[in-house]
Amino acid sequence: MNELAKEIERRILGAPFHQWMNINVIDAGEGFVEMTATYRDEWLGNPDKHSSHGGIVAGLIDLAADFSLYTYIGRGVPTIDLRVDFLAPAIGNLMAVGKAIKYGKRISTAEANIYNADGKLVASGRGTFLTC
Amino acid sequence: MNELAKEIERRILGAPFHQWMNINVIDAGEGFVEMTATYRDEWLGNPDKHSSHGGIVAGLIDLAADFSLYTYIGRGVPTIDLRVDFLAPAIGNLMAVGKAIKYGKRISTAEANIYNADGKLVASGRGTFLTC
Amino acid sequence: MNELAKEIERRILGAPFHQWMNINVIDAGEGFVEMTATYRDEWLGNPDKHSSHGGIVAGLIDLAADFSLYTYIGRGVPTIDLRVDFLAPAIGNLMAVGKAIKYGKRISTAEANIYNADGKLVASGRGTFLTC
Amino acid sequence: MNELAKEIERRILGAPFHQWMNINVIDAGEGFVEMTATYRDEWLGNPDKHSSHGGIVAGLIDLAADFSLYTYIGRGVPTIDLRVDFLAPAIGNLMAVGKAIKYGKRISTAEANIYNADGKLVASGRGTFLTC
Repeated sequence: MNELAKEIERRILGAPFHQWMNINVIDAGEGFVEMTATYRDEWLGNPDKHSSHGGIVAGLIDLAADFSLYTYIGRGVPTIDLRVDFLAPAIGNLMAVGKAIKYGKRISTAEANIYNADGKLVASGRGTFLTC
Repeated sequence: MNELAKEIERRILGAPFHQWMNINVIDAGEGFVEMTATYRDEWLGNPDKHSSHGGIVAGLIDLAADFSLYTYIGRGVPTIDLRVDFLAPAIGNLMAVGKAIKYGKRISTAEANIYNADGKLVASGRGTFLTC
Repeated sequence: MNELAKEIERRILGAPFHQWMNINVIDAGEGFVEMTATYRDEWLGNPDKHSSHGGIVAGLIDLAADFSLYTYIGRGVPTIDLRVDFLAPAIGNLMAVGKAIKYGKRISTAEANIYNADGKLVASGRGTFLTC
Repeated sequence: MNELAKEIERRILGAPFHQWMNINVIDAGEGFVEMTATYRDEWLGNPDKHSSHGGIVAGLIDLAADFSLYTYIGRGVPTIDLRVDFLAPAIGNLMAVGKAIKYGKRISTAEANIYNADGKLVASGRGTFLTC
């Protein structure tokens, strides 16, 4: 884990929700961040399918997209809006890869993909963030 | 609380995530549902502002929009995509009002507004749901 | 047609795309605007169904949502992002009703509904706008 | 231009809106399509900035995302919802690259990027499509 990833993880884990989400930052660089979220039973939205709730997935997309902007601005930023496509059931531990689409002085756009432990893309989304 | 609201609450509380979200269904009728979510500290996304994480808000929008369709179809349905506008910090207990926009035999659209305890609109969103 | 509606129509018709869309502003007030768009054959996206293209509908939602903010800021504003739900085929002349959801000094959110000549809701959408 | 691109162009140009948009299909393959749209003055949404209207850009994203699914299903499909991020002014001729994210038997997700003549990314978006 590089220094930037460690720094982002420290910042992220300052929030109780992120601790509860069991976030570990794996890698980070200019305009991107990778992190894992370790499964807990409270995530279950559909117990029959063993799948985690859309709010868990949306929260992880929000987080990873947001912190892909950290390189540019050095802090988490307010999310203006978020859009999520649910592509497959999110089962078990999750991996999130956030990527900046456009860093702007007032407004930025970033995206994140969510993968399950098999590497399957289970959700994908984008947000607009206030960077002023 | 009417019978439909009781039935929807029973269904919702079958999922661990909804239990963890402390959901109570207040009212329900054709194409709408109202529910509350009682605050817990793990929701905090920004401890300095006492505001809950976007994933909590997005999860509540997903849930309320989804179950506004329950009247028509008698079950929770898969969310295809979700879009959320964050309008103000979500602090403390939350109220969600879900409303069907269009019920279709294959695809449905529904929305939800999220209010804080003062009745202020803090977020608003929409989803597309698979109803076949 | 009130004075505000006349003023908004004048501003709107300063753009060639809006002239081509045959826009007439019907009514306007604080945080809302109503306008019509008179059909032309070039709008057809699906000739078999006589329905207009998604770009026509999305453009009208963008326009009506944007100008619902005119009362607050006195000009058209840049659209940051736009989300559209297509609910039914858009056939013939269209009516758009734009409404501000939240006016902010930096960022605003507004929505618009699109109706056909029978008053049927055919599409609905929202945008985020830069108001600084 | 390969045979698939020619076939897609023929289909696209069956609609008056696409003819008016001056669409040429450049390339196509499994899950992707590239096309150009040649500028016309009626596109202008902001004459001072020489930029085309959001409806033009949104319509092109809708079209390119939709036809990225053509390989799988052999026809244009209804758009359920569309989300667009406007990243920079869209000036002059435009290039659109559509890409399937997930082809499903009932519902599919696809995206498109829009570039200006200099190769700059000016907008990007996604749609959900009915493929049953």
